[in-house]
Amino acid sequence: MPIAEILTIGDELLSGDVVDTNSNYLDPILADLGWEVTRHTTVADELLVIADAMREAAARAEFVVTSGGLGPTEDDLTLEALAIALGCELRLDQPTMDGIEARFRSFGRKMTPNNARQAMVPEIGEIIENGAGTAPGFLAPLGNCQILLLPGVPREVRWIAEHTIRTRFQLPEPFVARRSFKLIGYGESRLATDVDEIVKKHSPLVRFGYRAIGTEVHLKLAAFVGDFTDGPDSAEQAVHACERDLDSLLGDRVFGKDDTTLVGALADRLNAQSATVAVAESCTGGLIGKLLTDRPGSSSYFYGGCDTYSNESKTQLLGVDPAIIVEHGAVSEDVAGLMAIGVQKTLGTTWGLSATGIAGPDGGSEHNPVGTVYVGLAGPEGLEVKRLRMFGDREMIRSNTALTLLDLLRQRLGASTV
Amino acid sequence: MPIAEILTIGDELLSGDVVDTNSNYLDPILADLGWEVTRHTTVADELLVIADAMREAAARAEFVVTSGGLGPTEDDLTLEALAIALGCELRLDQPTMDGIEARFRSFGRKMTPNNARQAMVPEIGEIIENGAGTAPGFLAPLGNCQILLLPGVPREVRWIAEHTIRTRFQLPEPFVARRSFKLIGYGESRLATDVDEIVKKHSPLVRFGYRAIGTEVHLKLAAFVGDFTDGPDSAEQAVHACERDLDSLLGDRVFGKDDTTLVGALADRLNAQSATVAVAESCTGGLIGKLLTDRPGSSSYFYGGCDTYSNESKTQLLGVDPAIIVEHGAVSEDVAGLMAIGVQKTLGTTWGLSATGIAGPDGGSEHNPVGTVYVGLAGPEGLEVKRLRMFGDREMIRSNTALTLLDLLRQRLGASTV
Repeated sequence: MPIAEILTIGDELLSGDVVDTNSNYLDPILADLGWEVTRHTTVADELLVIADAMREAAARAEFVVTSGGLGPTEDDLTLEALAIALGCELRLDQPTMDGIEARFRSFGRKMTPNNARQAMVPEIGEIIENGAGTAPGFLAPLGNCQILLLPGVPREVRWIAEHTIRTRFQLPEPFVARRSFKLIGYGESRLATDVDEIVKKHSPLVRFGYRAIGTEVHLKLAAFVGDFTDGPDSAEQAVHACERDLDSLLGDRVFGKDDTTLVGALADRLNAQSATVAVAESCTGGLIGKLLTDRPGSSSYFYGGCDTYSNESKTQLLGVDPAIIVEHGAVSEDVAGLMAIGVQKTLGTTWGLSATGIAGPDGGSEHNPVGTVYVGLAGPEGLEVKRLRMFGDREMIRSNTALTLLDLLRQRLGASTV
Repeated sequence: MPIAEILTIGDELLSGDVVDTNSNYLDPILADLGWEVTRHTTVADELLVIADAMREAAARAEFVVTSGGLGPTEDDLTLEALAIALGCELRLDQPTMDGIEARFRSFGRKMTPNNARQAMVPEIGEIIENGAGTAPGFLAPLGNCQILLLPGVPREVRWIAEHTIRTRFQLPEPFVARRSFKLIGYGESRLATDVDEIVKKHSPLVRFGYRAIGTEVHLKLAAFVGDFTDGPDSAEQAVHACERDLDSLLGDRVFGKDDTTLVGALADRLNAQSATVAVAESCTGGLIGKLLTDRPGSSSYFYGGCDTYSNESKTQLLGVDPAIIVEHGAVSEDVAGLMAIGVQKTLGTTWGLSATGIAGPDGGSEHNPVGTVYVGLAGPEGLEVKRLRMFGDREMIRSNTALTLLDLLRQRLGASTV
């Protein structure tokens, strides 16, 4: 499988200010096109360091994608570094210069002089259009490798990925059959133990990997076409046979496969049943609603909800009896239940969800330690409340609470399709 | 300045499944301790590739921190790779084995046999306690470098960073004076142009850098002690002098400096004035509430709100007259105003915030293209509604709307301290 590497450039990526999400975005696109991404490297805005890193990557890989350092400011050095790596000079590209000026005019703004830097490119190579920003990309041959320079702004990376990488860097055929199984709240080593027999049965032709991402765990299968004498169909069949065994074992505990997200799987079931949902959030502060509306078109199933962070708001918005809050506490089975029923009734939805808990780091007690969360599901057949015990920091507790509750609703809705 | 590098290990980091946030978490900690982080590398779960990457990093740096591949499954190869890099064998560490068993017992679960892998460590080096998980860390000398192996789970990385990195890897003195200025909704090249004279005045002793992160832009100053003949005080003074000039120019448009977050700056002002806030969210679906409650202790200023995603819920929860929604549309100045006033009255808070807009990708019109958002601020002195025009994808539009609105409230509250 031909090798690709990604090189990201920028002091901000080494200071803790910015997480590099571009590499992650590019990885599956390159994999789809048949490339094996074997390395990510991030280096600082240092001219010779960038040039060295380009040469090193080009020596290992056949395709190198860089991101960052094409902007207008003085610490944007990637084009100059490429010229050093190529051993050539920079030239002013007039069409790029004109394009940058036109773009500024269309926003009703005047081009600041520092933007001219973006039009200075190596003599060797070609300019790659960037329809989402002012800094164009650049493509050049470096040794036996093609090196593609992208800006650092994620939106611009996406634009060039869709318009140039997908169209010009597709390898002749897919090299591998893959399938991934995704579950919520199922420990990685517990899953490994549970599927052990299936793994043994299908190894080594099917290869297995585990990924834990917060409370999500993914079990990944891959079969390499090179391992099969009779071509890609056999690799697909081997993965299919293993998939059937895993389906029997894991059933509906799997919320989705491959690109399916939890919210996507849940949305499909809600839409298939024309069911609607409303949320009453306390410790999650709005996160459940945010997740449910991450997808376009979410208004078909999501009506809204009440963000009842304070005790007063639980009463004002959801009619929770203050006496019950005093008697049982805001973090209690009773209050979670009344919140779920309250929001279901107030908004007239099929389902009402609620979450109330101790996200920490303070506020825990012996009875309700940090990480204790009650979640409620009020549905057509009545109310269910569950006590959960989450681990980790505030962010993990909140995020895992939201995902666990959404997965409970998904399971409650049953399979919309087989 | 002594050089550090971070090496992250795992197929999942090269497939697009997981964004490496550990490197980003470690960067500022290492910088605080006096290390200059010059490179991040990510490699796949391949024994010899990992060993090579360790040796390469150790040749460039004096401190290498790795993350990932210490877990219980067969693709966890980091300890074995280190043994190869060191040229030594693995041994079973009985205390680690006992610790793993005890941890499983405390959760009421039996240790699965694959967890024993985590107790096989190189003969050279020492085990580093991990108080947040089963896989311990490991520290060894590799050439002229110290290499520290951490697990991949962010919570465990944090635990070891606090308990071992901070205590054992502090360099004798800080090498640099730094300050960063953070603004919302101020383009990078516009900022560069506006501060140009100040940059010229204080260069080259003060060095400048720009970072755009979504709608946030950061202007960073740094003075290296080595550039000053008379020591660290002069570097601090040079940064201070520049800071004063920037304060005069930018004023309250700067929401915070250094580690201050927007929500942190806003929370400080709300708390200083004993002001409270409630939110009525449409297109943001809960995100504003989520951001306001990311911080522990947010109940002092955040009461809750209404997630009024559907038109019906705007009426049911906030009393917005359906005739006004029909006449002006849900995305309108009128509706944004009524939402802000509605939630302020319903929850009896000092401030009511609202956001209603077209997050896309569909739903735009000529009058209200995708990215059009109305935000409302109902406060003690009345109502203000602003029409915003956001760019980017759904996620950016939602996130930038939330941050812009919170920054408007911050500015409206004025400076709580000088």
